[in-house]
Amino acid sequence: MNPTHDEIQPPVTVVEWIGNAPAGRLRLLDQTRLPVETAWLDCPDVETVRDAIRRLVVRGAPAIGVAAGYAMVLAAQAADNDGFHAALAAAGLALKGSRPTAVNLAWAVDRALARAADVADPHAAREALLDEARAIHDEDRRLCAAIGQHAVGLVRKCHGVLTHCNAGALATAGIGTATAGLYLAHAAGHPFRVYCDETRPLLQGSRLTAWELLQAGIDTVVITDSMAAQVLRERRVQMVVTGADRIAANGDAANKIGTYGLAILARYHGVPFYVAAPYSTFDLSLPAGDRIPIEQRGGEEITEGFGRRTAPRGVETYAPAFDVTPAELITALITDRGIIQPVTEAAIREGLQPRPD
Amino acid sequence: MNPTHDEIQPPVTVVEWIGNAPAGRLRLLDQTRLPVETAWLDCPDVETVRDAIRRLVVRGAPAIGVAAGYAMVLAAQAADNDGFHAALAAAGLALKGSRPTAVNLAWAVDRALARAADVADPHAAREALLDEARAIHDEDRRLCAAIGQHAVGLVRKCHGVLTHCNAGALATAGIGTATAGLYLAHAAGHPFRVYCDETRPLLQGSRLTAWELLQAGIDTVVITDSMAAQVLRERRVQMVVTGADRIAANGDAANKIGTYGLAILARYHGVPFYVAAPYSTFDLSLPAGDRIPIEQRGGEEITEGFGRRTAPRGVETYAPAFDVTPAELITALITDRGIIQPVTEAAIREGLQPRPD
Repeated sequence: MNPTHDEIQPPVTVVEWIGNAPAGRLRLLDQTRLPVETAWLDCPDVETVRDAIRRLVVRGAPAIGVAAGYAMVLAAQAADNDGFHAALAAAGLALKGSRPTAVNLAWAVDRALARAADVADPHAAREALLDEARAIHDEDRRLCAAIGQHAVGLVRKCHGVLTHCNAGALATAGIGTATAGLYLAHAAGHPFRVYCDETRPLLQGSRLTAWELLQAGIDTVVITDSMAAQVLRERRVQMVVTGADRIAANGDAANKIGTYGLAILARYHGVPFYVAAPYSTFDLSLPAGDRIPIEQRGGEEITEGFGRRTAPRGVETYAPAFDVTPAELITALITDRGIIQPVTEAAIREGLQPRPD
Repeated sequence: MNPTHDEIQPPVTVVEWIGNAPAGRLRLLDQTRLPVETAWLDCPDVETVRDAIRRLVVRGAPAIGVAAGYAMVLAAQAADNDGFHAALAAAGLALKGSRPTAVNLAWAVDRALARAADVADPHAAREALLDEARAIHDEDRRLCAAIGQHAVGLVRKCHGVLTHCNAGALATAGIGTATAGLYLAHAAGHPFRVYCDETRPLLQGSRLTAWELLQAGIDTVVITDSMAAQVLRERRVQMVVTGADRIAANGDAANKIGTYGLAILARYHGVPFYVAAPYSTFDLSLPAGDRIPIEQRGGEEITEGFGRRTAPRGVETYAPAFDVTPAELITALITDRGIIQPVTEAAIREGLQPRPD
């Protein structure tokens, strides 16, 4: 009775190719308009995609990677037959610059360029690029589903789950990373509630995660970040699960600001804290999390984050966008290749080995 | 060189009586317009004061109590000579109903009624009521200053202090409770920064605490509540101090939602966590904090807290307004009568004994 991952669809289409290779369009869900409006943006050219990535119309490293794959088809449509491959390379460079920290963006562009490099005929190259974009898209879907398969058993032991930020379907081409087990458990008929930290300053939890879980019919509760400790104290949740932006070789995990504090609160209350991420989020070249740079954001996200001023003029802010949760606070890592526990360098290297299908 | 409490003025006048007893007015700082505008509201009658309390023009239990004392003078102005004392009693009852949970409100009204009861002549009673209101006002100022005298030595050991919500001058008639030591340390020339949790959902930290500290010229930094753990990890603060709404006999302290989680984070990082409050905040009739009721607030403060919708329609919320920090997480209580440490029932009963002047 447990649905397989092939039966579970994301609650909304985040990235979609409309039409064929020579004349098709990339369609993106406009996440800046959520949760008030569900609207899609059609991108007829690379410049529109770049702007969409910069404005966070599409966000989440996996989803950005998928969008970039399709954007390379748009680049190929616009490129003249003369100098076709040079034009492609220039478009790829421009795309990479739209959000340089998202590793999947550069990875998808390079993968597209490598695929096109072997195809001299522009018409055939456009077809090959669409094929490659679809492969990237499908792989991301499968990674999410595989994470879900490993997470669902944990979720089914809980009647409440707490999450932070959005590591959901909206951040991927599939059913998300942190959310994958939630969608599968819900599809299997397991009754539970999900508490979403609103996730200041940009409110990805209340704007995005709560929205996508509600679309799927999951019982969803929004709290402010400051209420998580009380939710844990009242035993309303039996697990906490988040995504990650980068995981070091020792298991230290960078994620949205607030994740580290949440992991401490979970430990204090004896509630397991899980990080869900595909193999591609691991950066084994970094020995530990203190090597992960912490991006600082503009203070106006704090002082004017809702369209009106909520702090005195001239006040300083401190606005790290990410924090690093040390491995010792992480109960287990939930990956597409299985659950890694305990969270140690040896277990990670072993757990990430490709498995024979 | 250490200024005495008499030399330290609050950075702004929160409650003020303008004029004489027969024809004066109550002037309130309109805190709903902070931090964008600094404006005062003149209250010519009790009904205007009641509305101001309900709308949070004036807030913080001590400040509400002081305002209520002056409101009784307004009631006496409006009362006819015939049935003067009955009219006063009716006005007092109406005032108490404007915010029934603020204990200082009822206490100030009863104190005013007791003072007027012995004065038959309405003219003399108006003078007596203004005298009583000024006495309440002065006592609150002195309690804040006394807390500051005990806190300043702790602050002077720090180059960074973290606070949550507003237990500041804006919540009292003086230099606040949690902020009292900050103002005294600053006046003494000690260099330090104050990190203010913005304090979702109603943003008292960024709207009010940051504003009043900036008025005084204190180096002030606003962070989201979710950034506190990172600030602690980076050793940017050496103490955390908050106020309290009610403290049970064993030292468990109810305060704005988020305080409990902050106390856990402070403990995890080995940073002392202090609660500052006058003797009147202690409720020795309650053995422990689990007897303190937790008020639930409307979910719209979370989903539409900034004048626009930031969560999907129909989503549930969970919105406790307060949490209870257990005594074992509190390093010491800073009261007008001294520092109470360790935080135990015996130490509290001993520490709250009135001291001979």
